[in-house]
Amino acid sequence: MALKLKELAELIGGEVVGDGETLIERVAPIESAGPGEITFVSNEKYVGFMRTTQAAALIVSPRFRAVPKNLIVMLNPYLGFARAVGALMHRKLPRLPGVHPTAIVAPSAQIGRDVAIGPRVVIEDDACIADGVTLMAGVYVGHGVSIGEGALVHPNATLYHGVRIGKRCIIHSGVVIGSQGFGWAPVDPKAGKPFEAIPQVGITDIGDDVSIGAGSIINRGALGNTSIGRGTKIDSLVIISHNVEVGEDCLFVSQVGVSGSVKIGNHVTLGGQVGIAGHLKIGDNVAVAAQSGVSHNLEANGTYFGSPARPMHEMKRTVAALHKLPELRDEIRQVQKRMAQITALLDTDVNEGLKPAQ
Amino acid sequence: MALKLKELAELIGGEVVGDGETLIERVAPIESAGPGEITFVSNEKYVGFMRTTQAAALIVSPRFRAVPKNLIVMLNPYLGFARAVGALMHRKLPRLPGVHPTAIVAPSAQIGRDVAIGPRVVIEDDACIADGVTLMAGVYVGHGVSIGEGALVHPNATLYHGVRIGKRCIIHSGVVIGSQGFGWAPVDPKAGKPFEAIPQVGITDIGDDVSIGAGSIINRGALGNTSIGRGTKIDSLVIISHNVEVGEDCLFVSQVGVSGSVKIGNHVTLGGQVGIAGHLKIGDNVAVAAQSGVSHNLEANGTYFGSPARPMHEMKRTVAALHKLPELRDEIRQVQKRMAQITALLDTDVNEGLKPAQ
Amino acid sequence: MALKLKELAELIGGEVVGDGETLIERVAPIESAGPGEITFVSNEKYVGFMRTTQAAALIVSPRFRAVPKNLIVMLNPYLGFARAVGALMHRKLPRLPGVHPTAIVAPSAQIGRDVAIGPRVVIEDDACIADGVTLMAGVYVGHGVSIGEGALVHPNATLYHGVRIGKRCIIHSGVVIGSQGFGWAPVDPKAGKPFEAIPQVGITDIGDDVSIGAGSIINRGALGNTSIGRGTKIDSLVIISHNVEVGEDCLFVSQVGVSGSVKIGNHVTLGGQVGIAGHLKIGDNVAVAAQSGVSHNLEANGTYFGSPARPMHEMKRTVAALHKLPELRDEIRQVQKRMAQITALLDTDVNEGLKPAQ
Repeated sequence: MALKLKELAELIGGEVVGDGETLIERVAPIESAGPGEITFVSNEKYVGFMRTTQAAALIVSPRFRAVPKNLIVMLNPYLGFARAVGALMHRKLPRLPGVHPTAIVAPSAQIGRDVAIGPRVVIEDDACIADGVTLMAGVYVGHGVSIGEGALVHPNATLYHGVRIGKRCIIHSGVVIGSQGFGWAPVDPKAGKPFEAIPQVGITDIGDDVSIGAGSIINRGALGNTSIGRGTKIDSLVIISHNVEVGEDCLFVSQVGVSGSVKIGNHVTLGGQVGIAGHLKIGDNVAVAAQSGVSHNLEANGTYFGSPARPMHEMKRTVAALHKLPELRDEIRQVQKRMAQITALLDTDVNEGLKPAQ
Repeated sequence: MALKLKELAELIGGEVVGDGETLIERVAPIESAGPGEITFVSNEKYVGFMRTTQAAALIVSPRFRAVPKNLIVMLNPYLGFARAVGALMHRKLPRLPGVHPTAIVAPSAQIGRDVAIGPRVVIEDDACIADGVTLMAGVYVGHGVSIGEGALVHPNATLYHGVRIGKRCIIHSGVVIGSQGFGWAPVDPKAGKPFEAIPQVGITDIGDDVSIGAGSIINRGALGNTSIGRGTKIDSLVIISHNVEVGEDCLFVSQVGVSGSVKIGNHVTLGGQVGIAGHLKIGDNVAVAAQSGVSHNLEANGTYFGSPARPMHEMKRTVAALHKLPELRDEIRQVQKRMAQITALLDTDVNEGLKPAQ
Repeated sequence: MALKLKELAELIGGEVVGDGETLIERVAPIESAGPGEITFVSNEKYVGFMRTTQAAALIVSPRFRAVPKNLIVMLNPYLGFARAVGALMHRKLPRLPGVHPTAIVAPSAQIGRDVAIGPRVVIEDDACIADGVTLMAGVYVGHGVSIGEGALVHPNATLYHGVRIGKRCIIHSGVVIGSQGFGWAPVDPKAGKPFEAIPQVGITDIGDDVSIGAGSIINRGALGNTSIGRGTKIDSLVIISHNVEVGEDCLFVSQVGVSGSVKIGNHVTLGGQVGIAGHLKIGDNVAVAAQSGVSHNLEANGTYFGSPARPMHEMKRTVAALHKLPELRDEIRQVQKRMAQITALLDTDVNEGLKPAQ
């Protein structure tokens, strides 16, 4: 696959400066890009490479318009890079529309047009698969599940009964959606029955354009719903517990754990391995740094860090002080020693000295 | 589904106060409950809603017996709520007894009565499936596995050879039980062979009434067994390593990691993302707060927190002091400054003052 | 299965001292070993058991050659133990060579000799399965995947298109390799499209003799590769993000999370639940303690601990000081109090005393 620079510019939404006829075959990092390859500059530390690169062309922001190279100029070169990769290098695997003969589809399930249902897929009663959906090998679709137009479910993912998946969602392998959450009513330990299961009768509602990474788990609601808002992206091995409500356009990095009944606003970023305790509220636009443990509500627009998590600037001061703690302790020992000297001085020399004056 | 209040009271083990003929259709939270709905009060902060709620009835503890509403009175209203949800709202999915024609069952496997074995299940030689077991689509049951009466295994779970599952266990999707643990004998890095696998020949023994959440992993023993005691509940994405012994009625929240050969007593609670180092002993009734890292044995009946974990009250003092550390450092700076002033004073004014007295 | 001690010694690479005709049936821990059982001593704290054990024989290092027992003497008794377990107790499950009739193998896939492909396996177009490979039930092998000689993939593992698996690799159940990583280009949140997916067009390259524990996730590269070096062992529920490069003979314990584009050297050990931030470099022979969070490059040959991770000896001093922090605060309060007394003294008694001298 090769494109002229002007064709690529049109595809990715940029403007050509230089020779629009240049043939572009691949995208490459600026350090290694050569003939036939396009690269991009969005990070200041790569600006130095701009004049020396052997790349056939560069995707740059408008302030680099004067660089004497073949350019695609656009406001967001990183986005341009992403689109160029898609245009030049994203070899789409053949998609086989239809229902594989080894798929097991319940008679009462509704199957839309142009679906691709792979081998060994199981679709239970009353499920509803919209147009253009792809279900890869071994996917399990429970009773009454609905999957929106154009969604893609990778092999061996599992959707429990009643789960709702929005349009264009991408669900990766090993994902489990709609499993029963961790709800146990304490009964009477002495009677030999310490817990009784709280039936988990709610559902799980995944909005449009959500992506869920490999191995992540989204439980169903206990009584109400667990919901993930439109556009939210969830990385791998994340657990979202029962009755959690997540807003739109959030980013949750791998291994995040969100406890039951937490309410999370829009555009919230949770770093890797962050844990959030139950029943908390996290405001819009909050960012939480990796490995933090959230044990209180977090106000909107803040950045938080630590376990327990606190505002980033406070926590940074604390961590800086912590790392100086052994030195601080030594200083306190010095102070104590000096104070003992002063005390001794006051008790002896000084008092001695004062004696004659009394 | 609707029940008279007196019928519901009998089902959940409570006593009616008020109109036992009231029809109850659903369970709802106290803030939103309306006609036809029952709610409950177990948390002090919801008591204020008791007189204003539009709910048709409430489940309450005996001290609220005089509230002028239709009531079900019982000692544990939360348990009553759980049971009411089960009675009114837990629509049981149809269970199809029998063996699905696409299931692959080895001739030597023993299959009990009233089992429901779904599509694409694989049962290997010498496995033993007791009466009333449900294995959903895509479950893999290895060589010689035994599954106790009434157990339920959700789709796409995997049981390696020789695993024993107790009666009435619930195993969620994506769970893997009996996988080989992480055992590597160091050999000779210089000879190009730094590790040799230690054969993992033990088994995994899951007691009765255990529940294992989606995506959790329980390794087999290396030489002896990995065992999970009766009634223990394990949440999602938990790893239990080889030769761990877990007691009865424990609760392990999501993403807990327990290293090899750890011995855990009865009724132990581990919060989310807790990690436990290898070969430790955790006493009965211990509770460990979320994200803690346990690096020493923990005595029974204690509550622990932190990484490394320490008794909760100690760790709380430490965390409180930590969060005041920048201020403390400033105070030390003040002390040092004041001390310098005093020293200067003692070296000049005071000494000066003393001179005439000498 | 039983072996004469001399036969076992030959199998495990040791030398017999004592009666080579002794029959050995099993391996057991030194505390419990009895007739017909062999045990080993590699840990100092078990030396005391050497004279009292009822074991039929012991595997020991050369310095215990004089102990009056039947012995196998070898430099690495722990390795001997591992091999003895393999020789005596590792009952190999029957392996059924051939392709199970329910496996779905694309006509263009290349299948080597002596493979064992289980029920419900799906192998897509252009995949290449080398000689001696075992794929257990429900494994998914994507388009163009290659799997090296003698590799073993456990049930319900998923290999996305284009993944390369080396010779003799062991891939456990629930593992997902080659899934798309977490790559989102920010677009224009106000225009209702905050993120655009960055196509993940790279591959995943797993070296020879790598082991990947149950439920772990290895993403494909975004543009280049994600690679795991020869001999590296990865435990359960680990996430390796896109474009990570891991060297040879590393050990990653359960629940480790490695962010995108991290470069890790050879022979690196990461403890359980360690997290590594994106784009970092970790030198050869580094060890990172459990639950640490790595936010800076780590120099080779060091041992690190904490979140953020720092050299072990520094962090240990800090943690020790931290745990004394409440006491330290009390000491500072004492210093402040004493200082106030001194100040008062200087302002009153001393100055008073000085007055007559002026």
